[in-house]
Parts: sequence; C-alpha cells; structure tokens
Amino acid sequence: MIETDILIIGAGPTGLFAVFEAGLLKLKCHIIDALPQPGGQLSELYPKKPIFDIPGYPSVLAGDLVDNLMEQIKQFQPGFTLNEKADTIEKQADGTFIVTTDKGTKHLCKAVAIAGGLGSFEPRKPLIEDIEFYEDKGIEYFVKDPELFRNKKIVIAGGGDSALDWSIFLSNVASEVTLIHRRNEFRGALDSVEKVQELKHAGKIHLITPAEVIGLNGAEHLESIDIDENGAHRTIKTDYFIPLFGLSPKLGAIANWGLEIEKNAIKVNNALDYQTNIEGIYAIGDVNTYPGKLKLILCGFHEATLMCQSVYNKLNPGKKYVLKYTTVSGVDGFDGTRKEAEKAVVKSID
Amino acid sequence: MIETDILIIGAGPTGLFAVFEAGLLKLKCHIIDALPQPGGQLSELYPKKPIFDIPGYPSVLAGDLVDNLMEQIKQFQPGFTLNEKADTIEKQADGTFIVTTDKGTKHLCKAVAIAGGLGSFEPRKPLIEDIEFYEDKGIEYFVKDPELFRNKKIVIAGGGDSALDWSIFLSNVASEVTLIHRRNEFRGALDSVEKVQELKHAGKIHLITPAEVIGLNGAEHLESIDIDENGAHRTIKTDYFIPLFGLSPKLGAIANWGLEIEKNAIKVNNALDYQTNIEGIYAIGDVNTYPGKLKLILCGFHEATLMCQSVYNKLNPGKKYVLKYTTVSGVDGFDGTRKEAEKAVVKSID
Repeated sequence: MIETDILIIGAGPTGLFAVFEAGLLKLKCHIIDALPQPGGQLSELYPKKPIFDIPGYPSVLAGDLVDNLMEQIKQFQPGFTLNEKADTIEKQADGTFIVTTDKGTKHLCKAVAIAGGLGSFEPRKPLIEDIEFYEDKGIEYFVKDPELFRNKKIVIAGGGDSALDWSIFLSNVASEVTLIHRRNEFRGALDSVEKVQELKHAGKIHLITPAEVIGLNGAEHLESIDIDENGAHRTIKTDYFIPLFGLSPKLGAIANWGLEIEKNAIKVNNALDYQTNIEGIYAIGDVNTYPGKLKLILCGFHEATLMCQSVYNKLNPGKKYVLKYTTVSGVDGFDGTRKEAEKAVVKSID
Repeated sequence: MIETDILIIGAGPTGLFAVFEAGLLKLKCHIIDALPQPGGQLSELYPKKPIFDIPGYPSVLAGDLVDNLMEQIKQFQPGFTLNEKADTIEKQADGTFIVTTDKGTKHLCKAVAIAGGLGSFEPRKPLIEDIEFYEDKGIEYFVKDPELFRNKKIVIAGGGDSALDWSIFLSNVASEVTLIHRRNEFRGALDSVEKVQELKHAGKIHLITPAEVIGLNGAEHLESIDIDENGAHRTIKTDYFIPLFGLSPKLGAIANWGLEIEKNAIKVNNALDYQTNIEGIYAIGDVNTYPGKLKLILCGFHEATLMCQSVYNKLNPGKKYVLKYTTVSGVDGFDGTRKEAEKAVVKSID
C-alpha cells in the first residue's frame, strides 16, 4: 500500500504545483494519473504550443512549463502512479482515505485533492468489430512505451499531430511503419507534415491514403488488418495497430464518489479552501466549479495553494501557522537539499 | 484628465498582471504608484533576491519577474502615474470614479482595483530637527532620478543594501559621496560591502563610522549637516542628504475611502470577485483580506484575473463571455501586435 499525506489525482500543472505548496508545509504528495507521463493535457495534447497567460511568462511552451514545474517540485520527491485511473475511494473511521486504481494499486492518504482537469483522457476508438478483444493484444491507443514496438511491424491511423509525430518517432524503432488516413490531407505542424513526406520518400514510412481500417484478424494476438483503400479491400500483416483519433476527457469513476457534480465539474467551497461536500476531499483546477470559476492554469495554482493550507490546518489543529516567504526562509527539500537567497553579511569596512 | 477602463493602484506584480488579463478582455488599464518605478517591493526592496514559489519558476530573481511581467503586458500599453500617491476618490453619478493623487493628477475610470500590497512605502525618517523643512530642498528619501545628484556633493546615511548600493551607483554621478552609518558594520550583500570598501580605498566614497547626522543647516536649501562622530561634533558641506533607513508600508489616504478595513487590509468578497464594500472598487493581492487569505504573489495573480472578469461582466451586461485560451485564440495587443501559436497546416503528402 502506498502511503502519503495528500493524494493528488491528476498530474497536470495544478496537481504538480500542489506538490510544491504541500512540501513547503512538510506534507508529502503522491500523484495518480491515467496518462503515461506527468503534465496532463500540456504534455499529451500540446507540448510544443505556446501559452501566453502564465503570469511572468510572456510566452512558454506547454511542455517547458511542465518541465519547469517538475524541476520546481523535484526536491519534494512526489510519488507517481501513472497509467492508472483512480477508481474507488473508501473513507476510514480515522478520517483517512484508501483510493484504489483500476489496476488495483492502493493508496492510503490523509487528504485527497482531485486535480483531474477536464477528466481522464479516453481515446476515441474507431468502430471496428472485435476491437476490444485485441486491446493489449496488438491494439494500443497510446504510445506508453515506444520500446514495445522495437523491431515490430506497426500500423498507425490518424491525420493529426499525434499520428504524424509518432509515425516519425517510431520509424526509428519499429521494423515497419505504415500510416493510414481516411483523407489525403494531414492536419498538423508544417515541419511534421514535411518530415513524414521525407520519410515516405526514404521508404521509412508507408503511407496509405485515403484509406480506413475495417477489420482485425488474429487468433490470440493481432496478426493483420483489413483496409478499405478507396473502395478496394486488402489485408496487411502487422504486429500492432495504433489508432490515434484524439482523446475525449471523461470524469470517469470519480463521478460515483458521492461528490456534488454540476455540468461535469465538482462543486467546491471557493470562499474557503476548495473543499468538496466530502470533508477531506478537495477539487482544484479545471475539474472544479464555483461562482465565477475560470478554467485557467493560474487559477489552479491559487486553488492548490489554499487547499494545501487547509489540509495543513486540519492535520495540525490549534497550531498557529505563520506564512513564510521563500525568499526569506528558503526552501528545504525532502531530499536534504536547500534553496535559499544569498545571505546578507554583517561586515565592517576598513 | 487621464481616462482609462480600470485604474490600478499599485504597480507590484499583482497590479501589473491585472493589465494583461484586462487586455485579453479589451479593457485598458492605468497604474498609479508612489514609487519611482514599477514592481513594488520586488523592485524597491529585493530586486536581486530569488523567489522560489512563483509557479513554473524553480527560482526567479524578483527584478527579473518584474521585467517579465512588464514584457508580458507591454502590448496592452498600460499608462503609469509614478511617484504619486492616490489621495482622494469621488464616485460620479454614472458609476465612474475620479481618483486624484497627492500631486493633483486626476484619473477618470470605470472601475478601481487597489493592488497596493502592504501599502505605499513611506521612508523611515531620522529624528532630526527641521527635517521636514528641507524635504525637496536637499533631503531625499528615495533616489528617484540619479541625475538630480549629477556633480553635486551628497551624504548618504544607512547601513543596509540601499545605502551601500546607492553609494556605489552615485559615486559615478555625484562630485562627492559620503556614507555615514552609526555602526562600523554594514549589513548587505557581500559583493556590495566589498565594492564600497574598494571605492573607499580609491577615494571615491568617504566613509564616516560610527557616526550620526544630528543637524541640518541652510537658509533656502540644505547647505551643510552636523554630525556626531563618536562623541565629537563637526559640520560637513553637502548639497543633498539621503537618509536610507528602510521603508515602512502605510495604507495611507486609501484608509479614508470608506472601505471596510481589518488589520490594515481591505475586506473583499472572495467568494465572487474580490470586490470591496463599495461597488466598482476591488482590492487584489496583499492589500486585501478574506477567510484563508495568503499574502502570496500567485494568489494576487488569481485575484487580478477574477477581478478583470467581474469588471468585464459589469461593463457588458447581458453579454455572454466565452473564455478564450491564449494558446488557441492568440493575444491581440492594443499596439496592433499579435501573439499566436503556429497554425496547423492542412496538406497532402505525395
């Protein structure tokens, strides 16, 4: 059983920054996320796009913001349960919670902060017969670990940045990469489109357009797929089929936890600490709602901070907390590191 | 009369960032600040010190954060009334306000956002007879414009970073710099202390310690000062005396505007929009208070954002606002510039 002070559900920017604010209060955090890497939407959907409304950054690439947040929280050694979804929650008699993921991993914690953004990203699945049967047996909706495809034959379907970028990346990993799209035109960053064109001419990517995958074959594991290319049918041998048709966010199992939900968002007490109707469970960032709510990253940072303060006050009743400024007090990491401003000297001049 | 949509009082990080959020909503801002430059405490008190709790910055120098915020808001062309203090406010029949500074500058606006931090910084004045008489006639508590001291004789008093740093800077401007401190030891950044030592040996700074200024002389303008050096009295000719004994924040005239004040901070409605008890006047950042308030820069950013949204809704009743993400919509400056993410192309691959 994983034990922590604050269990954060969602490794987007709000969840990540919560680790820092908790750390300043000596509280440990562990983060669960359905995606294979931290960063939420920023890493999964638009890592190379600029954000212009992060305070103090005239412009920052989404991926760089995640990297900076990871660097900022490193010293507080957060734990991560990635590739898993928070599934059930159980409140213990002593007020602690046990949260279990869809893969059975159990987490014991003193408070839960749901920082789930728009929800966990569920892949849009193509309508092909028996596709569920082949999941984890040749069908992958995410590239979680590129090594899975080392020296394998793979077929990627899709016409956007994900399909283009993974085709490019995996052309150096897989033994054979085929990219299938139902249109001739791709929609993505210019340099990605051009790179695929180049790799096609170099024979490193096979391109089949306009075409659709219409059937899957194989006894135990995927062995081949049937495609419809402009009306003509044929079958291609492949070890893996990776349909990349976008993601759609779903609140998922959290919707069954007994929380007050309004328009797919969790209602919180914004006048105090962003707590939900269940004591000890908070909701911060895009996943929550309250009068005047704006789904902005910078609002999530504020909400995360007040949430940590509330958890600290609950765990330390009667203890008077005095706010410390990092510039004055420095930051003591759980890993023994210390960050601090250069100290003033007291020195006579002769 | 200066006219604007939102008049911001205080050019600290919260006030500066408000310009950006207002700009996204096509609202113009003008900022009043008592200090000679934007940035508030960050510029005046600790520009070279690192801050560790700005989200997305593992470490950022306070002065750099201010520079970045100025760069971020540049495109929204904020106006500045610097070196002046907001003094009186008058609510017009049409709901607009006229704010007049201590120097008589008038500002007409649709909403007021007080982002005054801990208050306007008032210099700690030494207890010397007639010191008020010589203010603006040889006594300066801030270095607002170094050129004032070009080829003049100046005496600086104090033992901290301000006294050290301005002695160093002005040693290249004034014809003669004397630094007086009541102790032999200075307290400041090591390199500043060492630099003063070096300039003393080079004859560019005269050092008198331990000593105190005890009298001021001159008919119309300061001509000389009396000092007590270890019990011995003597008089030194000087054009200017700059006592740098620190600053103490005062809410000042704003305390008389009829706002609900609690422990030197302005009470606001944190459950909605950080508005005060007077409709159209908001308080954001360290200057406000509400249950659970934390005086952190990142909280000020959030409060500024919700304040702008509230002003927008008041000025555009019935207009449904749809939140736009800067990554998706880009940012259109009032100066005609546009920032935007690189557009996706739609392109076939042959």
